[in-house]
Formats: sequence, structure tokens, C-alpha cells
Amino acid sequence: MTNAKPTLHTSLSPALLNLYDLSNTVVVIIDVLRATSTIATALYNGAKCIIPVDSVAKCIELGRKIDAITAGERDGKVAEGLEYGNSPFEYPRAFIENKTLVLTTTNGTKLLHMALERGAPQIITGSFPNLSAVCNYLLAQNKNVLLGCAAWKDRVNIEDMLFAGAVINRIKKNFSINCDSSQIAETMYTKAKKDLFEFMKAKEASHYLRLSGYGLEKDMQYCLTPDVANVLPFYEEGKLIVHK
Amino acid sequence: MTNAKPTLHTSLSPALLNLYDLSNTVVVIIDVLRATSTIATALYNGAKCIIPVDSVAKCIELGRKIDAITAGERDGKVAEGLEYGNSPFEYPRAFIENKTLVLTTTNGTKLLHMALERGAPQIITGSFPNLSAVCNYLLAQNKNVLLGCAAWKDRVNIEDMLFAGAVINRIKKNFSINCDSSQIAETMYTKAKKDLFEFMKAKEASHYLRLSGYGLEKDMQYCLTPDVANVLPFYEEGKLIVHK
Repeated sequence: MTNAKPTLHTSLSPALLNLYDLSNTVVVIIDVLRATSTIATALYNGAKCIIPVDSVAKCIELGRKIDAITAGERDGKVAEGLEYGNSPFEYPRAFIENKTLVLTTTNGTKLLHMALERGAPQIITGSFPNLSAVCNYLLAQNKNVLLGCAAWKDRVNIEDMLFAGAVINRIKKNFSINCDSSQIAETMYTKAKKDLFEFMKAKEASHYLRLSGYGLEKDMQYCLTPDVANVLPFYEEGKLIVHK
Repeated sequence: MTNAKPTLHTSLSPALLNLYDLSNTVVVIIDVLRATSTIATALYNGAKCIIPVDSVAKCIELGRKIDAITAGERDGKVAEGLEYGNSPFEYPRAFIENKTLVLTTTNGTKLLHMALERGAPQIITGSFPNLSAVCNYLLAQNKNVLLGCAAWKDRVNIEDMLFAGAVINRIKKNFSINCDSSQIAETMYTKAKKDLFEFMKAKEASHYLRLSGYGLEKDMQYCLTPDVANVLPFYEEGKLIVHK
């Protein structure tokens, strides 16, 4: 008897991505604080598309060329030469509707480009604000899944692991999971789910300390709230668009 | 006011070791199933020393040259050409006392050599059988600490994380810990500590499945038992010896 369920793995850092087979696999890019939360939010609020690029220079150049909004951060702050940052609150409907955003971030867009280079056939982005959209898509596809945590400069972080755990918690019955990182992620999520923000605070998560140092508690609370921007960002021909 | 406490970090995979500064740092090599449990056990039972080598060929060559016992595994089984394997039960006092063991394993000895190449000034090995010896040493040294998980072919595993968590749980008050991997490890340990073996089984840890497939539950139970071989293996001039 063969096990007909597709597999699910979790890569806890971009430095571990090369351990996983990405062929015939849906790759979920996870950068909870704050790239993928902001991507979901901008698309939810009507952005035409988001073009992820892997350097500030490319962001500026492309923004000029196609007359788009340029945004991004390095080390948690607006990167020099760009107009906007990485906060979901910068992209309300009144501002972003029907516009194109060119985005570069420390970890999230880097991981997306790594997955592209590795030939991932299907790439989506995930965060708590679009948790249900991600889970529903993965269940409908019924293909192998790789949950890719963007982490922080290759160091494993708590918040991306918690999101991976939330996805696993919802969809595990449909997948074959022989992956300790996935088991760890789900265990952590189960422990934290009653109050994700309080958990991050109690554990002195490094990103909690970094962002609260900038006065960004409100950003974090939003980024840890399920389904407040419940669309599915889907990568197609260089752009993240809403999957219909 | 400066924080005078030394730092503590956890590297969850050899592929992440390069992210951490090892200068002036005590590196703890952790390969719970089973290399570092077996190292503690052989030294506890009176082995003169253990010479860790990073290949089967070197193991055979050196064993011949110095007339030592050769041992090691690849993929959880005795490696071809070697006399003994990686089970602590192969090294009772009656067999190993006053003998030299040349050892190579899939993950543990590889990580030790990586730490050496990175210039780590102090290397010890840790596992549940020598948990207290490790903690007491780290507290007495009062230096920066890097808990290095050997993992499985670079994939993060549960059991090495649990040991890192056990160490952190005991010594955290004396260290400054700004490291999500360490927070994750301690959270996992707290969740698992009532019965580590049952936790591994319940979580379908990949190494639990691998070793129970070989009938090695007894090995796992031993390797998850604190302080049954409570010596401190210390690396000095190419050898692991008991630290006095």
C-alpha cells in the first residue's frame, strides 16, 4: 500500500532551503514581520501587483522605469533611497489601490528569489493576515508543500516558525509529514496560539525586541492577526498578484 | 550599566554554524542519538580517550596505525570496514576500559571538525547522559556558549534541540540570551521534559522512526536519560578525554 498523500516540509532558514526538493512543490514564502504580511495587505487593499526585487538598487531603477511606488527595508527601517517602508499600515486602500509596488526586504524577498533560482514551479506568500487563503490553496492543490521561513539573516526566528505551525495545524491530515522542523513548528504554535503577541513578548523573541525598540508594537499585533487581509499572493511572471 | 553576563546561542544545524562567533566561546557538540551519548558512556566506562575523525577511511587507517578500536556509523548503521557501531551499549567497562576508540559518525563528528576549523578554542560534547557535567562546566567557565546541534544531514532534529533546551533551562539565569533558536529549544524542552521518549514517539521524530525501525528503542531510552554517564568529554590535541 502506498501513501498517496503529498509531503510537507518546513525549512526554518534560507540557509537550509537547499536541503529540500522543490520540484512539483508549492513553496510558501513566510516573512511574518513584516514582508509577507505587508504583501497580503497591499494586495487586499487593491494594489495592482507587487514586484519583489532582491536589492535596493534594482528597486530604485525599476520604480523609475515603470513609474511605480518603491518600498523596502533593511534592518527593520526604510531603506535609503526608497519612498516607503515595510509596514502594512503604509498601504491603505486610499493609497495603494490600482498601483504597482516594487518591494525589497532583508529576508522575505531574498528567500523568494532563492526559491525561484532553485526552480520552484509554484510560489505563494503566507502570513497570519492571509492564513486561511494559504491553507485553502494548499488543500485544493494537493501537491507537495515546502513552508519556507525567511528568518532573520539566516537565523531561525520564532514568528515565521509560528506561522508554519499554524498552517500545519490546519492542514496536516492531508499531508505526509516526516520532518522534525514541521513537528517543532506545530508544537510551538500549539503552545503560543492563545495569544501570539504575548508569547512573542514572553519569549523575548529577537524580532519583538527589535521592532518594539522602533515603537512598532501595533505592526506586530496586526501581523499576528489571522485573516485580516485574506487574499492569496501568487507569483507569476515576475509579479505577485492575487490568485483568483 | 553594561550587562556583564556572557552570551548563549544555539545553532540548530551544522549549516547554520557559520552564523555564530566562536571566538572566546565554549562550543558544546550535541548529537543525542547517538554519538555524544556514546562518547560520554565510553569515557564514563574508563576509555582512555576517543579520537573523533570525519571519515570512515581515516578511522580505518588510524585504528590500524595506533592499534585502537574503530567504530562509527553511517545512516544509523555500523559503517562498512569498522568494527563497532554507535550504540552506547557496545561500550561497557569490561570492554572499553583503558582502550582508545577511533570514532566517526554521520553528524556529530562532522560538526566537531567544523567547529575546530572555525577555530573554536574550547570544545566539549553534551548529551542527556552527561547533562549535569555539561551544565556545571558551563556555569564554572562563565564564558560565551554556543550549543551546536549536530542535526541529521543538516536537517534540524527534535532530540538535539531538546538537549539544548535542557541545558538552557538549567543555566539561563547566568547568561544573556538574545537568540530565538535558544528560546524555541527551551520551550520545546519544557513541553517534553515529563517524558522525553514519549514526546519523541508522539511527535513522530524522524530519528525515532529511523532507530525504532532498527529495533533500537532501548538505545533511545538510554540516550534520553539524564546523568547516567556523567563525565565531561573535553577536546584536547585531537582527542576527547575526561575533563578533571
